[in-house]
Amino acid sequence: MLDSPNNPVNNRRIEALLLHREIEEFNNAYAAALDENRLVDWAEMFTDDGFYVVLSRENADRNMPVGLIYCENKGMLLDRANAMKTEMFAPRYLRHIVGNLQVLGEEPNGDIRARANYVVIQVLFDRPDAKMHQVGVYYDKFRRVGDQLKLAERRCVYDNLLVDNALCLPV
Amino acid sequence: MLDSPNNPVNNRRIEALLLHREIEEFNNAYAAALDENRLVDWAEMFTDDGFYVVLSRENADRNMPVGLIYCENKGMLLDRANAMKTEMFAPRYLRHIVGNLQVLGEEPNGDIRARANYVVIQVLFDRPDAKMHQVGVYYDKFRRVGDQLKLAERRCVYDNLLVDNALCLPV
Amino acid sequence: MLDSPNNPVNNRRIEALLLHREIEEFNNAYAAALDENRLVDWAEMFTDDGFYVVLSRENADRNMPVGLIYCENKGMLLDRANAMKTEMFAPRYLRHIVGNLQVLGEEPNGDIRARANYVVIQVLFDRPDAKMHQVGVYYDKFRRVGDQLKLAERRCVYDNLLVDNALCLPV
Repeated sequence: MLDSPNNPVNNRRIEALLLHREIEEFNNAYAAALDENRLVDWAEMFTDDGFYVVLSRENADRNMPVGLIYCENKGMLLDRANAMKTEMFAPRYLRHIVGNLQVLGEEPNGDIRARANYVVIQVLFDRPDAKMHQVGVYYDKFRRVGDQLKLAERRCVYDNLLVDNALCLPV
Repeated sequence: MLDSPNNPVNNRRIEALLLHREIEEFNNAYAAALDENRLVDWAEMFTDDGFYVVLSRENADRNMPVGLIYCENKGMLLDRANAMKTEMFAPRYLRHIVGNLQVLGEEPNGDIRARANYVVIQVLFDRPDAKMHQVGVYYDKFRRVGDQLKLAERRCVYDNLLVDNALCLPV
Repeated sequence: MLDSPNNPVNNRRIEALLLHREIEEFNNAYAAALDENRLVDWAEMFTDDGFYVVLSRENADRNMPVGLIYCENKGMLLDRANAMKTEMFAPRYLRHIVGNLQVLGEEPNGDIRARANYVVIQVLFDRPDAKMHQVGVYYDKFRRVGDQLKLAERRCVYDNLLVDNALCLPV
């Protein structure tokens, strides 16, 4: 199967593997930023024109754009990140599990399309147990800026019909 | 550690990596087919003699073969896929998280043995919250048919003792 | 991007990929040992001076060391593994999902630092449903002993404030 490392077919597969790994690494760093409440780091993972939306599967399936969170560029993302410092909400821990990554292909402008499943598990400080806060899919466009990957678009489409408690923090 | 890309030991490790990635990609495409309710696509991921069973850990541990779903070939799988169009059951969203993939080795006939853990999260349309519908292990045999991987066998062994609501759709 | 397989930059990326895969494989074998109740196999995955602790995120954030389980070397781990044979507790199934692996770097002594998120799903035999028993992060130091990876340290930091039922088995 792997006749020679100089085999061009094989090199393409290794290249695909490296890209897959790079995006997986990005997603894990993204999850860690949110789980550790580093929201400015989170916002900085987007391009300047980065688009971020959290919307229900119901709305997404009907091409209805309204979501729980809607940010059209990094300014709006940073605004949200900084606003969290003054907002009042019950203290909580979050933990993201991101899996099932699929790298889907390239857009005409070079952006890389990908998707991954996510589960956000939440612990409210006044309740003893961990709950599945949100479960859904990230539909993404990644762009290379310098030597880094950034999100040009992340659409978080969640399955659960009600969001338990409240969605304060991004997913 | 990585003296030279022409190092045969190293090539074996890269080959193992590529196979692992290929199976992971298969599992993610499989999960997406089910999550998007594309059941014919799901059935087509098996070989013609593909074996598919969903059985409890209790039964599996005692070598008892009866399961909730039992299909001995692709005809039975397609039959099931098509039957879902006429069956009546509460509408729902499913989301699979597949993780902990282990490629275990090769059978004498060349089939590749693997296992992975899975969690199926279900949202019923008349209930607000996401629930863990089923959690378990896929015990698999993969076979290469042309340039594609197919499932020659998938045994889904679930831990939970009761299946909430009903198991309508394959896992 | 992948000019030549003899490219040293590229070799470094492949090397990183192989190490990542190796740790992922370790974590999956670790999870399988616990899920299948092979506790001596579990203990053998640590170095002789292996350190293992399960502690709450509350305590970990405050640098407070007391945890639910605390083992300072393989002797204590094996002791715990063997003690489980005589302890009384409700029978249960466990299933680990380990994801979001990040390989973080190397310690001065050559140990490899890594982290991964985990969810332990538990089914008690006298209750029908699967529950999230524990969710958290593994903070790890891996060491190469001969040709095998071993855990020189695993700190399991869990988010949930109460542990449902009891923590009998290691995570």
